[in-house]
Amino acid sequence: MWPAALLAASAASAADQHLITLKASAMPSGQLAYEMVSHKVKSSTGKESDLTDRYASGPTIPGPTLVMKEGDVAEVTLQHGIADSALPVSIHVHGVHFKIDSDGTMKVLNGVADEAAFPDKPYTYKWTAAPGTAGTWAYHDHAFGNPMLGAEDKGLFGTLIINPASGKVPALIDGKIVDVDLADVKREFIIWMHETTFWGQELNHIIEGGKEIPLWTNPTVGARLGEKVRFHVMGIGTAFHTFHLHAHRWIEPGATAGVDTVNIGPISRTSFIVKAGEGVGPGDWHYHCHVIQHMQSGMMGDFRVIE
Amino acid sequence: MWPAALLAASAASAADQHLITLKASAMPSGQLAYEMVSHKVKSSTGKESDLTDRYASGPTIPGPTLVMKEGDVAEVTLQHGIADSALPVSIHVHGVHFKIDSDGTMKVLNGVADEAAFPDKPYTYKWTAAPGTAGTWAYHDHAFGNPMLGAEDKGLFGTLIINPASGKVPALIDGKIVDVDLADVKREFIIWMHETTFWGQELNHIIEGGKEIPLWTNPTVGARLGEKVRFHVMGIGTAFHTFHLHAHRWIEPGATAGVDTVNIGPISRTSFIVKAGEGVGPGDWHYHCHVIQHMQSGMMGDFRVIE
Amino acid sequence: MWPAALLAASAASAADQHLITLKASAMPSGQLAYEMVSHKVKSSTGKESDLTDRYASGPTIPGPTLVMKEGDVAEVTLQHGIADSALPVSIHVHGVHFKIDSDGTMKVLNGVADEAAFPDKPYTYKWTAAPGTAGTWAYHDHAFGNPMLGAEDKGLFGTLIINPASGKVPALIDGKIVDVDLADVKREFIIWMHETTFWGQELNHIIEGGKEIPLWTNPTVGARLGEKVRFHVMGIGTAFHTFHLHAHRWIEPGATAGVDTVNIGPISRTSFIVKAGEGVGPGDWHYHCHVIQHMQSGMMGDFRVIE
Repeated sequence: MWPAALLAASAASAADQHLITLKASAMPSGQLAYEMVSHKVKSSTGKESDLTDRYASGPTIPGPTLVMKEGDVAEVTLQHGIADSALPVSIHVHGVHFKIDSDGTMKVLNGVADEAAFPDKPYTYKWTAAPGTAGTWAYHDHAFGNPMLGAEDKGLFGTLIINPASGKVPALIDGKIVDVDLADVKREFIIWMHETTFWGQELNHIIEGGKEIPLWTNPTVGARLGEKVRFHVMGIGTAFHTFHLHAHRWIEPGATAGVDTVNIGPISRTSFIVKAGEGVGPGDWHYHCHVIQHMQSGMMGDFRVIE
Repeated sequence: MWPAALLAASAASAADQHLITLKASAMPSGQLAYEMVSHKVKSSTGKESDLTDRYASGPTIPGPTLVMKEGDVAEVTLQHGIADSALPVSIHVHGVHFKIDSDGTMKVLNGVADEAAFPDKPYTYKWTAAPGTAGTWAYHDHAFGNPMLGAEDKGLFGTLIINPASGKVPALIDGKIVDVDLADVKREFIIWMHETTFWGQELNHIIEGGKEIPLWTNPTVGARLGEKVRFHVMGIGTAFHTFHLHAHRWIEPGATAGVDTVNIGPISRTSFIVKAGEGVGPGDWHYHCHVIQHMQSGMMGDFRVIE
Repeated sequence: MWPAALLAASAASAADQHLITLKASAMPSGQLAYEMVSHKVKSSTGKESDLTDRYASGPTIPGPTLVMKEGDVAEVTLQHGIADSALPVSIHVHGVHFKIDSDGTMKVLNGVADEAAFPDKPYTYKWTAAPGTAGTWAYHDHAFGNPMLGAEDKGLFGTLIINPASGKVPALIDGKIVDVDLADVKREFIIWMHETTFWGQELNHIIEGGKEIPLWTNPTVGARLGEKVRFHVMGIGTAFHTFHLHAHRWIEPGATAGVDTVNIGPISRTSFIVKAGEGVGPGDWHYHCHVIQHMQSGMMGDFRVIE
């Protein structure tokens, strides 16, 4: 059933309403992770779709990548599925709008409520992707553990992509800064930098209806030569990194010169579009943290560009 | 008495002349800190005002927040008030113009003079907030200690705000990048990130004549819903941080996309205006360092937005 | 002899072709370093010039600073000159275009070849400074050592400057953001930040034909008052830094506000033009890392501005 508030919020616009249920779970490794339970969407014309099958089954690190666009609203319900623990677990989200009771923090911090799921007691958050919130944002736990500040560094983190209402993102393509239509982006790679490990995920928009593919640690990501692909790179935990992708370069929004190595701290990020193999051709293009101790600890992967 | 050079410097413009006296002192905790002794201003029309009462009395960390605008000039005299020490102490300022004898360094570095206060021997610095120097800048000791490189990490640091001649600063308000009139900004929060602690201060422009309020460590800062408030966040010492404010987002000057978590190293900064509670309403909005070890060490506070 | 491919590549444009030979060597200190063997250039009109004499003789840290402009192509041959070692050594370059066999990595990473020099077996890389590659970039080893990830932190790093086809770079001069003609820049300072040490080099364009001058560690760099000088500051290794230059300020490309202290991680950089002593006059203007432990370890130098 669609909540009345959710319906009202997007009545006047072409916005979508998202009804999402996530679960926080423990993996056999002992790490914690979010998993997708259900994601339904109702468009402004009333059309309903069920996106649940797009997601990987079971918990993943990073957690499910949620994609909305400016104007959309969402209700996100979190279930507590961490066996053998009665500690609360939550979702705090970055970038979008939400009232204080959707902050995902404990009452000791927000003064209102323990905004977290307990065993058999889910918690629901309401988000609005208002104008100006376009970007790549983190969501993560802000409650589990002792002290109750969150277990983001144990695996409870994921990615929220708010696409701009214009559907266009500036990028450095063929040597020029141009606006790229997101409809032309066929693959998106989500890459998190946690201490000395990359954790990856792919959104593949070529497969019918799109598909999220978990890539786990230090993955090889791939594209066909000339495809426009979008990277979302973010840090988590304690370490600082510099993300480098071989033989490609990109721009930060508003910048007038390209970079190929960017400072990444916890929850700071770079999000960019490149044309795979532009001017350099196919190959296993290395990406790695340029902090040499991190790299020597194995913090690297390949961007495989094939013809 | 107003120095002739100071009077001459601003004769042809609408610039203000600032005559400031600070003192470097030791606090009972053993930390060092600057305190305001006197701040007088003469406008281009010859009107004199005494701003001394706007400041907190006694030494504070961060030190007194000095506010000037592009075009202004200042003479800043430092008194040595550190009991039981004959070591020199100084002010090195960022951002503005000054001759080499106002650099605040020791002769071993600048080749000219020991530009520092000694017991019973104050030192005077001359600054010009020339066009192009608008921004939020640090001032700090560059002389005390052994070696004589400065005791900025012992508390001897403060903030210099140079407001642009235009009186306007770009900001992300109601989802759009607009120029905000600084006259509409009622509260400014100065937040320094030192190892695992925030040190705060408020400039309150609502109180008649304005008032600087020391907030000390990991403070709650507050605003009324919808007020435009300005944050100045800077690092000091050795650690790197990522500053995050819940449920609000902002832009860096020139950027075309919002952020809510920014890399902060020693003396690097983010300075931005937000509309308190924009789209999210009232609440105790958490701010914290997103480096999880720093956060778990207590590096956090609240931005309390009330109706 | 000029390779046919190189000639073909630039036939249609005003581009220069660069034929460069470098050698990786060991220094008596045990550090490794690149040295210039030969640098010849053929212009689009067929004029040949030999730039070899512009470079320092012998290995230097950082290695030879290579300067090209958008549109240029280069063949760079690396000789293995590290006595007592049969381990491969390579050049991986940032920013420009190159096919996967010019990546400078080992076959285990790129899947194609060991793109490195072995004793008595040089390796040749082909680079294209395509439109959009203007900027200051690193080149460094990506093969030496165990594991074969590169000895960039042992000294095998250098700088590649790609000047824009327009010949102009935005800068904050006399309080305004203007486009500076690179022909008006007489000195360029290359400053690398490695752990607690600066490694410097000067490109002096005043001397007939230009000259590269190695400056080694924590150097004094110098300019005449009012000269436009260009700084290229980059990190290498593991540490994060904040680069500060006293009494000067600059802009990042696209930014609308000045800075005087910038976060620098491994291979991230700031590249900027200032007018020496603008508004502040002559003096020994200190530059240093603002991470206080780095500064206290001696990570500092002077920018000496004379009349």
